[in-house]
Amino acid sequence: MESVKSQSYDVHINELAEASLNQHVANRDYSKIFVLVDENTKTHCLPLFKKIFQHPIDAILEIQSGEENKHIHTCLQLWEDLSNLGGDRKSLLLNLGGGVLTDMGGFVASTFKRGIDFINIPTTLLSMVDASIGGKTGVDLGSLKNQIGVINQPEMVLIFPEFLKTLDPRQITSGYAEMLKHGLIQDKAYWKDLTEKGGFTDASCIQRSIAIKNSVVLQDPTEKGLRKILNFGHTLGHAIESYCLDNPDKKTLLHGEAIAAGMVLEGYLSHELRGLSKLSLDEIKKGFSKYFDKVDFTPDDIEAILQLLKYDKKNSHGNVNFVLLQSIGEAVTDVKIPEELFHRAFAYYKE
Amino acid sequence: MESVKSQSYDVHINELAEASLNQHVANRDYSKIFVLVDENTKTHCLPLFKKIFQHPIDAILEIQSGEENKHIHTCLQLWEDLSNLGGDRKSLLLNLGGGVLTDMGGFVASTFKRGIDFINIPTTLLSMVDASIGGKTGVDLGSLKNQIGVINQPEMVLIFPEFLKTLDPRQITSGYAEMLKHGLIQDKAYWKDLTEKGGFTDASCIQRSIAIKNSVVLQDPTEKGLRKILNFGHTLGHAIESYCLDNPDKKTLLHGEAIAAGMVLEGYLSHELRGLSKLSLDEIKKGFSKYFDKVDFTPDDIEAILQLLKYDKKNSHGNVNFVLLQSIGEAVTDVKIPEELFHRAFAYYKE
Repeated sequence: MESVKSQSYDVHINELAEASLNQHVANRDYSKIFVLVDENTKTHCLPLFKKIFQHPIDAILEIQSGEENKHIHTCLQLWEDLSNLGGDRKSLLLNLGGGVLTDMGGFVASTFKRGIDFINIPTTLLSMVDASIGGKTGVDLGSLKNQIGVINQPEMVLIFPEFLKTLDPRQITSGYAEMLKHGLIQDKAYWKDLTEKGGFTDASCIQRSIAIKNSVVLQDPTEKGLRKILNFGHTLGHAIESYCLDNPDKKTLLHGEAIAAGMVLEGYLSHELRGLSKLSLDEIKKGFSKYFDKVDFTPDDIEAILQLLKYDKKNSHGNVNFVLLQSIGEAVTDVKIPEELFHRAFAYYKE
Repeated sequence: MESVKSQSYDVHINELAEASLNQHVANRDYSKIFVLVDENTKTHCLPLFKKIFQHPIDAILEIQSGEENKHIHTCLQLWEDLSNLGGDRKSLLLNLGGGVLTDMGGFVASTFKRGIDFINIPTTLLSMVDASIGGKTGVDLGSLKNQIGVINQPEMVLIFPEFLKTLDPRQITSGYAEMLKHGLIQDKAYWKDLTEKGGFTDASCIQRSIAIKNSVVLQDPTEKGLRKILNFGHTLGHAIESYCLDNPDKKTLLHGEAIAAGMVLEGYLSHELRGLSKLSLDEIKKGFSKYFDKVDFTPDDIEAILQLLKYDKKNSHGNVNFVLLQSIGEAVTDVKIPEELFHRAFAYYKE
């Protein structure tokens, strides 16, 4: 399958991923090669990776999976491990895992001795179609997501859809949300294909999603303008995700599950403020309901989620800026929302 | 005094620094302005800064001075402060302090919400002539210096030699070491001027040092080649500094004091391996002895320091690479040192 060219690196899929990785390492004089895994990818992905990778691995670093471990203390442990294991500026870190692991491993590599090379090998559908492109690295600060980080590009990103076979179905569905988003913000035909034909885990759909995200990021690497459209569903989605993670009474939501709710809510705001038709709004709600259970929000939950919005890192000057849809496939940025509309959006979501 | 143009930013001195700062802030739509101080700069520098700065300050953040506080936990506190005080992506951080503070403040700004603007206002001679240029930011990892960090440029660097009047004389002398280094690696006439005429704290000498460092950094921003010459004296100097900081029996050395010893030791290695004349070597030793007390190293100290060398972040593949001098004003990089020469270097230093 054809590779997708990003800024300073390429995204390679299947056979080409294997060949490119081995070629890259053969061409470089890396002093040490480290592989970062979590308890899941150690069991389910590392054996396959070891078959693919033709070079010696100096050490396997292991972290605990889960958003709750995506904080600076895990980074500190990894920096100490790299240092104790003799990592130096010419070391390479291979990040084998989902978005939490690749975000955190990318940040650790970007800051260890002011930056060593890293390669991302996403193992979840969500990280293949989202975290793999764009160079965002980082960790959470308390319950605030991705507050600490840098933008820095990997040497390459490698996609092996084979890894998806080992995933829990809920993890797969979580990835659908970002793929559906790619259709909603940029490509109506892709939205139609996904919601009508499915095929999310086919290499061709994964590549299509990567190509959409990549074309947006290439036009605006530092998120000054266009790139903001990738945040559709994420402003409310992040607040929902943070709130559920932090609240022992709520079921923890996967990222895709939270932003799926966020996209229906922000779809409603789009209808109210940017002329998204009622037909399209209902189509969006129906499209997500095929794959995602409705989240149950109490009035207290909604209040707490709206409070959290104020801390979202994309907000500036205390205002909350939203990405909305004018139509399916066409997004607009920097929309301010009157407070009362949020309550109506949650009411529509509940209907 | 004329400004020095660096990569994406300028270094301004005195009146031009004041005007440039106020102009820059007037031209930007910063959401919040934070000033980072330590207990010393809060007392001795903040009052003067407030007279100069014509814009409202939203909050003063304070950290404890000293290399022992230059670690990730201090950063965590600052990230939390920025977050709790409503800092967002359009906030500005003004770092008012020495190299520890500007290195750490630069790192905190570079990683908060994936990067906010920062301006460095160095208040020590050492930070004016060294940390102010080059974009290195970061913190220590245990006793290993600057292991965690990124290379990122401030919006501008502002030099007010007035701040030097409030400094302890030992802090001033510490700055001499880097200025003397600038002469040794690039400019024999400057070395002669400094060792024969003095005038280290004159704005013209500060500017001359900045210009030398800047020209080296501009030719090699990411330290692949030429920039390494700035590490003259630092390979052994860092190990000495780390060892003394970590060892309760040893007097803690200021950075300049440690690298002054490092430069005499590496001067000896230069004489042995790269043809630096005995006359020049003695001139270097004599130049430093005018300002720096000799450090007393026991055989155990020397062993421990040589062990620490292995962990210096500039080392690659376990080898220790040194910058040496061919003559005063002319440096060479990537020299490997036979083990026994280190002991002879310490013996020469003791003579």
